[in-house]
Amino acid sequence: MEDTEFDLIEKYFSPLGQWSLGHTLVGPGDDCAVVQVPDSRQLCISTDTLINGVHFPAGATGQMVARRSIAAALSDLAAMGATPFGMTGALTLVQISARWLEAFSAEIGDLIKQWQVPLLGGNLSQGSELSITWTVMGLVKPGEFLLRSGAQVGDDIYISGYPGRAGYALDCLLQSREVAASLEKHYSQPTPRLELGEAINGLAHSAIDVSDGLLADLQHLLTASGVGARIDLAALSADAQLVAACGVADSVRFALTAGDDYEVCFTAEHDQRKALELISRQLQLPLIRIGRVIESQMVEFENVPGHLDTALLAKHAGYRHF
Amino acid sequence: MEDTEFDLIEKYFSPLGQWSLGHTLVGPGDDCAVVQVPDSRQLCISTDTLINGVHFPAGATGQMVARRSIAAALSDLAAMGATPFGMTGALTLVQISARWLEAFSAEIGDLIKQWQVPLLGGNLSQGSELSITWTVMGLVKPGEFLLRSGAQVGDDIYISGYPGRAGYALDCLLQSREVAASLEKHYSQPTPRLELGEAINGLAHSAIDVSDGLLADLQHLLTASGVGARIDLAALSADAQLVAACGVADSVRFALTAGDDYEVCFTAEHDQRKALELISRQLQLPLIRIGRVIESQMVEFENVPGHLDTALLAKHAGYRHF
Repeated sequence: MEDTEFDLIEKYFSPLGQWSLGHTLVGPGDDCAVVQVPDSRQLCISTDTLINGVHFPAGATGQMVARRSIAAALSDLAAMGATPFGMTGALTLVQISARWLEAFSAEIGDLIKQWQVPLLGGNLSQGSELSITWTVMGLVKPGEFLLRSGAQVGDDIYISGYPGRAGYALDCLLQSREVAASLEKHYSQPTPRLELGEAINGLAHSAIDVSDGLLADLQHLLTASGVGARIDLAALSADAQLVAACGVADSVRFALTAGDDYEVCFTAEHDQRKALELISRQLQLPLIRIGRVIESQMVEFENVPGHLDTALLAKHAGYRHF
Repeated sequence: MEDTEFDLIEKYFSPLGQWSLGHTLVGPGDDCAVVQVPDSRQLCISTDTLINGVHFPAGATGQMVARRSIAAALSDLAAMGATPFGMTGALTLVQISARWLEAFSAEIGDLIKQWQVPLLGGNLSQGSELSITWTVMGLVKPGEFLLRSGAQVGDDIYISGYPGRAGYALDCLLQSREVAASLEKHYSQPTPRLELGEAINGLAHSAIDVSDGLLADLQHLLTASGVGARIDLAALSADAQLVAACGVADSVRFALTAGDDYEVCFTAEHDQRKALELISRQLQLPLIRIGRVIESQMVEFENVPGHLDTALLAKHAGYRHF
């Protein structure tokens, strides 16, 4: 006999709802979950849909779909400086594969504990396209959250982690080329920069998560803040492993445009450099200073590597070939 | 030039995020929304996906998709007795139709005010199947919410509104048969029973929203409560308009099995009959007493109409042909 929606929920997802952080009065299984938001905390909320063949490769394992989709969703909490509080997931399946569902739910089971984000509820549907929508909730102290709109002229601009690696890895994956595990994991196993977000909350002036590509997302931040930026592309070609794999120009191109990084781009004033170096060491996470905020509402580039397709940069009003 | 994701959000959805109830510190447009959950309130959360051709007919208008999907999502808040607080929506479009998007967003704009549920955020994707996922949030006083698990032996069992009308209307729609507007609207324009949910919170012992069909959802409630039910099918054939349209047997069949009602099924003790009659009058909403909770964990039926396909009832362990 075929499994119904309720059998599948019972088998693969109900056990995940057992784990909570003590704020949960009613977990998954009723019409709603009920939670107690701690007094003197405000609630951050974000929702993200990831679709087969768009946000993860068609045929991706249940493990990869779970990891990439949850990381993408939590990355928005990181960019606000919020602490995870809980999430709901809505999965649309095309067909039922016990093996896929086992891998998918086992990975969720690991990640909710690793990232301390209880599963509060969900929805399971059948459709013609595999997709998943996560709605994540996080906590901040009153008024203490990072917005896109806070960048100030003179701020340093940073990007966390390893921009470009995920894009390069995906490129290899799509072309069935081999890729080193140290690069590949940034695509298949992205890590939301939750600790970083909490550490720079109150220190950074503005932040955004990089999900559409660094240039595109930086532009959102600059527009929201009514400012521009001068970017030193040399800072984006300093990843020796990535440069060794694909050269300087492609390193920079992947770092600027790949939408799979789930890193945090933020701005902070010059005086915070020492504090940020300390945070970087404590978290063992690179914080790459890629430029500074300027008054003129354009993006200018320094140290453009030869062989970089400058059409990329020309899309930005302020492109100048230094 | 084609509209990008950001153009579409700007044009159709950003204006909707302007309306709030005063709890919103940051509306849609940043990485997260930020809200202040009122002190001494607990938060109810539910997520629902609705898919083209499954939860609404392929080719449905933007207005119908908005209305049916939001009603379905808010119906879960009604069944908890919660007051709407906010929601996020994730829309996956196959193609971009300005006319469809205008109708869809205009209907959302009306409904968020009518049902007092601010739009806190969203996601817009392109995929191969039209679908929408709403995550709704509502407020209750601490510990004051309705669960499926509270039904007690001897409780009366009620269903709100007009069970069966939506199912009959859909049947007509799928067969291109004419259907009276007074029946059709229960399919195309369902109303979440939010006022009812709030009114019976603290009075009813248990509740569930009917989204999979009355028999299926009642069974969830009975299972969660560890009890059974004795149902009087005569109570489900008292809708004169529906009976006139399709006869007694089909009226009962649609009422028992149609998954499109978004009514609330609840149980309350005998002593509450007067109070519930008053609530019914005040809300101008029928509350149909369809049976009572029994100790034996089965569902028994009384007054089974001739011509009703009894295979329907036989699925339930306790079926007896009275």
